[in-house]
Amino acid sequence: MDYPLLRNINSPKDLKKVPENNLSSLARELRRFIIDIISAKEGHLGASLGVVELTIALHYVFDTPNDKLIWDVGHQAYGHKILTGRKEIFDTNRQLGGLSGFPKRSESPYDNFGTGHSSTAISAILGMALASKLQGDNTTQHIAVVGDASIASGMAFEGLNHLGVTNTNVLIILNDNAIGIDPSVGALKKYLTNVKAGTAKDENIFECLNLNYSGPIDGHDLKALIFELKRLQSLSGPKLLHVITTKGKGLKKAEENQVVYHAPGKFDKHTGERIKKDSTAQPPKYQDVFGHTIVELAKKNEKIVGITPAMPTGSSLKFMMDEIPERAFDVGIAEQHAVTLAAGMASEGYVPFCNIYSTFLQRAYDQVIHDVALQNLPVIFCLDRAGLVGQDGPTHHGVFDLAYLRCIPNLTVFAPMNEMELRNIMFTAQKELKGPIAIRYPRGRGVNMNWENEFESIEMGTARCLKKGSDIAILSLGHIGNTVTKILEGLDQDKRVGHYDMRFAKPLDQTMVIRIFETYDHIVTVEDGCAQGGFGSAILEFANAQNYRNQVKIFGIPDKFVEHGTMGETHTLAGIDFDAIFSYIKSTLNQCD
Amino acid sequence: MDYPLLRNINSPKDLKKVPENNLSSLARELRRFIIDIISAKEGHLGASLGVVELTIALHYVFDTPNDKLIWDVGHQAYGHKILTGRKEIFDTNRQLGGLSGFPKRSESPYDNFGTGHSSTAISAILGMALASKLQGDNTTQHIAVVGDASIASGMAFEGLNHLGVTNTNVLIILNDNAIGIDPSVGALKKYLTNVKAGTAKDENIFECLNLNYSGPIDGHDLKALIFELKRLQSLSGPKLLHVITTKGKGLKKAEENQVVYHAPGKFDKHTGERIKKDSTAQPPKYQDVFGHTIVELAKKNEKIVGITPAMPTGSSLKFMMDEIPERAFDVGIAEQHAVTLAAGMASEGYVPFCNIYSTFLQRAYDQVIHDVALQNLPVIFCLDRAGLVGQDGPTHHGVFDLAYLRCIPNLTVFAPMNEMELRNIMFTAQKELKGPIAIRYPRGRGVNMNWENEFESIEMGTARCLKKGSDIAILSLGHIGNTVTKILEGLDQDKRVGHYDMRFAKPLDQTMVIRIFETYDHIVTVEDGCAQGGFGSAILEFANAQNYRNQVKIFGIPDKFVEHGTMGETHTLAGIDFDAIFSYIKSTLNQCD
Repeated sequence: MDYPLLRNINSPKDLKKVPENNLSSLARELRRFIIDIISAKEGHLGASLGVVELTIALHYVFDTPNDKLIWDVGHQAYGHKILTGRKEIFDTNRQLGGLSGFPKRSESPYDNFGTGHSSTAISAILGMALASKLQGDNTTQHIAVVGDASIASGMAFEGLNHLGVTNTNVLIILNDNAIGIDPSVGALKKYLTNVKAGTAKDENIFECLNLNYSGPIDGHDLKALIFELKRLQSLSGPKLLHVITTKGKGLKKAEENQVVYHAPGKFDKHTGERIKKDSTAQPPKYQDVFGHTIVELAKKNEKIVGITPAMPTGSSLKFMMDEIPERAFDVGIAEQHAVTLAAGMASEGYVPFCNIYSTFLQRAYDQVIHDVALQNLPVIFCLDRAGLVGQDGPTHHGVFDLAYLRCIPNLTVFAPMNEMELRNIMFTAQKELKGPIAIRYPRGRGVNMNWENEFESIEMGTARCLKKGSDIAILSLGHIGNTVTKILEGLDQDKRVGHYDMRFAKPLDQTMVIRIFETYDHIVTVEDGCAQGGFGSAILEFANAQNYRNQVKIFGIPDKFVEHGTMGETHTLAGIDFDAIFSYIKSTLNQCD
Repeated sequence: MDYPLLRNINSPKDLKKVPENNLSSLARELRRFIIDIISAKEGHLGASLGVVELTIALHYVFDTPNDKLIWDVGHQAYGHKILTGRKEIFDTNRQLGGLSGFPKRSESPYDNFGTGHSSTAISAILGMALASKLQGDNTTQHIAVVGDASIASGMAFEGLNHLGVTNTNVLIILNDNAIGIDPSVGALKKYLTNVKAGTAKDENIFECLNLNYSGPIDGHDLKALIFELKRLQSLSGPKLLHVITTKGKGLKKAEENQVVYHAPGKFDKHTGERIKKDSTAQPPKYQDVFGHTIVELAKKNEKIVGITPAMPTGSSLKFMMDEIPERAFDVGIAEQHAVTLAAGMASEGYVPFCNIYSTFLQRAYDQVIHDVALQNLPVIFCLDRAGLVGQDGPTHHGVFDLAYLRCIPNLTVFAPMNEMELRNIMFTAQKELKGPIAIRYPRGRGVNMNWENEFESIEMGTARCLKKGSDIAILSLGHIGNTVTKILEGLDQDKRVGHYDMRFAKPLDQTMVIRIFETYDHIVTVEDGCAQGGFGSAILEFANAQNYRNQVKIFGIPDKFVEHGTMGETHTLAGIDFDAIFSYIKSTLNQCD
């Protein structure tokens, strides 16, 4: 495979030497390069294919990195990385020690601002533009590329609302492909559809917000893009350019099935056909256990509703949206709204399951406190992707939830160790909940082939003793308890080691904790959340209040951001993998001898 | 004082018996009643005066509480409370055991949803409306009253974006008085001004979002209001009525000075003249120490910028907005934007002081983690109203910050014990900060008359020993350390008790903590934040890691929402007042004897 134009491009400076007429060829090469690498190495495909021309045009017209360029969310930044000096190492994308899957300041001067979560780019670029103005610099250009799903989020609106009353050199590029990870929703999406169809009336919504609006233009037409970007370059003040693109552009299968090809895994680079993984039966993904179980429960309990902020596929709430559409709501990238909408429904006697990735619940922290917990409304939060998430890295690790939720009064915090525990707590919560609960479970698969158990109630605030011992008690919370199970196997079920699946980070099973502290000298807590203020800390607080003086060792995420890598590698980085815990137990047992 | 109409109204049912022609008289009485009580008892005045007619019209036309009515923020709900059965106890407003200053579900069936923080009403009412639809109920009306400052916040936009694609019976009343607590800002405000002037072009921004828009109408014209509400009552689908009101309406001084009369304290009910408080010199408010100090520092360091989300007066950033307007930014009710804007500025070498009330930083939690801390950008957060805030109650207590911030890597967390400490940490942070810091200080006054000290640097992560002892060490964090100082006076400076102002919740002064644990048997930690995961918990974690077995007693907010009352009363409710700590120290000293 050869890349006659691309191979000579190691920076935007090189790009600028390419005659404009050859840029379409370059676009084809860039697209092919992305497909070549991602088909073999995996990653986010569709978004970057959609902005190949836009990426080339931006670096062709503007003086990056002196002109500032922020890619909102960052899934679409592969072409940007390849054109800005990272072509040769692009095959390390999302691997331990390799390139980040997102723009990252420490990785390149061309990554002016790190992204990952959506809708931050307008605020960040405006901050930079205001800084430029204060320095008396009126020539630097400030560009943010924002998707139509992302611009509908509240934070983006806050940025636009401020931007419109400044006279900064800011250009927002609305990359409108009518899809985020799942298809876009909401009134703004409907409006943009009308704009594209030419049926919107006179004044444009962005003009209402005092922005200089232009477009819509075809985002795959390089000449049109370059012409328009050059025109806007010479206009001062805040501007918005509406660009229409096709997600997955240039790979037929990716254009046809945009949701799957957002991140398709390995695929045939010629046909686009996805490469089937080992078909050996495996335990289900936790997300699918959630998805199947909510459908099962909702068929029996007509008060159940499901809510997702823009993650129907990722959360598997899609199953309910397909089967019981009138009670399943995708509200778009709007975590704040999702939570308070759930509170409103709960106040009317409905039973909302509000499914949000742990890392994204950070967006709705105030709503959990102020609208749900303070009013003690029985909202059931299902926090997917809790703990370390692997390749998406530090923007997406869901490691703070135990600490930031545990301090909220009225809130129950639960982590299932396996599929059946997840099913049973969902069953219990919809049946008898009097206040809010957060159920946090990880990315990836459970541990049981036969997981579709008959439902059983879980008594609130009770732990499970999995194995009795005499010297060392391991108290685990959630799925990471399965690592403890393996460690016990590695220790030939040493009789001195007990194992307790604590399940509830809050309320603690105080009776059980007292029994444990009375029985064992050594206590070990294990969680895949941050050690500061987390589950282990809860055990310390209670033990201290009870005047216990046992030795307590806390395994949790240390006080640093954990980089990207495989799930296993990130656990190793955090010091909470099998080896780390095993050696500690082993050496403590030796001391007990 | 007599209220011939109002005295007979104990519910909306009674209101409906009043002939429409008499409603203007009732409005005058209601306004007078509010002024009578608030002039003597204090509270939020201006907002409620502005919606007297709207309040009457809503309860006159709609079938509350069967029809649902949510008052966004809730400052404007006094008239609503008075007309819905709480007239006789309205003089207990904001007092311990009395009425809440905000709508509160547990207080009245007419308070369909509790509010306090802004911009929640659209999401909540939509949740209720969707619940109604699921029940096959197409007649219940769902109304949310939202101010123009509040509707410009991101969360409100998320609600509108969803609302516009539903066919629910929701009526949003945009209460447009061009002011929140301070005057409204932003592009939407500018647009609304054009709408009012008739200079906006054809399509309305709310129509772009698929809402049935009507207005603007005069919100003090009862006939017009009732006519329009009745018309809208018979229209199905989501609607927005634009109502123009004057904040403080009916009290000349309140209309003329809307910022001051938002919550004017005691005043003469006839003239509106504010009653001067005792003019004895007092220590300054912490907010003013911040306000004066940032101006002082910014005059010397031209990289300093100040940011407030809609709290120029409350934060005293107003001082800088007046003196150095080009570097001081009020971004409106937009905490998320404020934080990431600050991150953008910091990434360009500016030194942003981002001043946000502790309770409102909950709105920007993700931005603190994802945009600031992960990129280790030196943003200086000044968190005003940290700890218990008294009369505003549980919606506004800033008690979770230590727990939710302490778990974030790279972030320093500091609490000044007095004015000089606040000044010195601000000085230090702008001079030498390499990463982000959160400085949290309380509502109210400091403790020093002579506070304008020469600046001194504070070494990061160092505590202060205020008094050495031998048996009991009290480790306090922040202003509540002054209570400890008084306790020591009460103990005649008992030589056995030491006192340490720890200053940094993170990083801990580990050297000092080790010395303390080596010296004293009894450790007492004192903070005005939640005990779960807070400062005391940090001490426990460190002591446990160091294998100390000293007795540790943690004074912090227990695991419950603390009701409203005076500052002192709320501290008593939380068990962290002088008496509670004093008795514990006293009895522990007796044990030491």
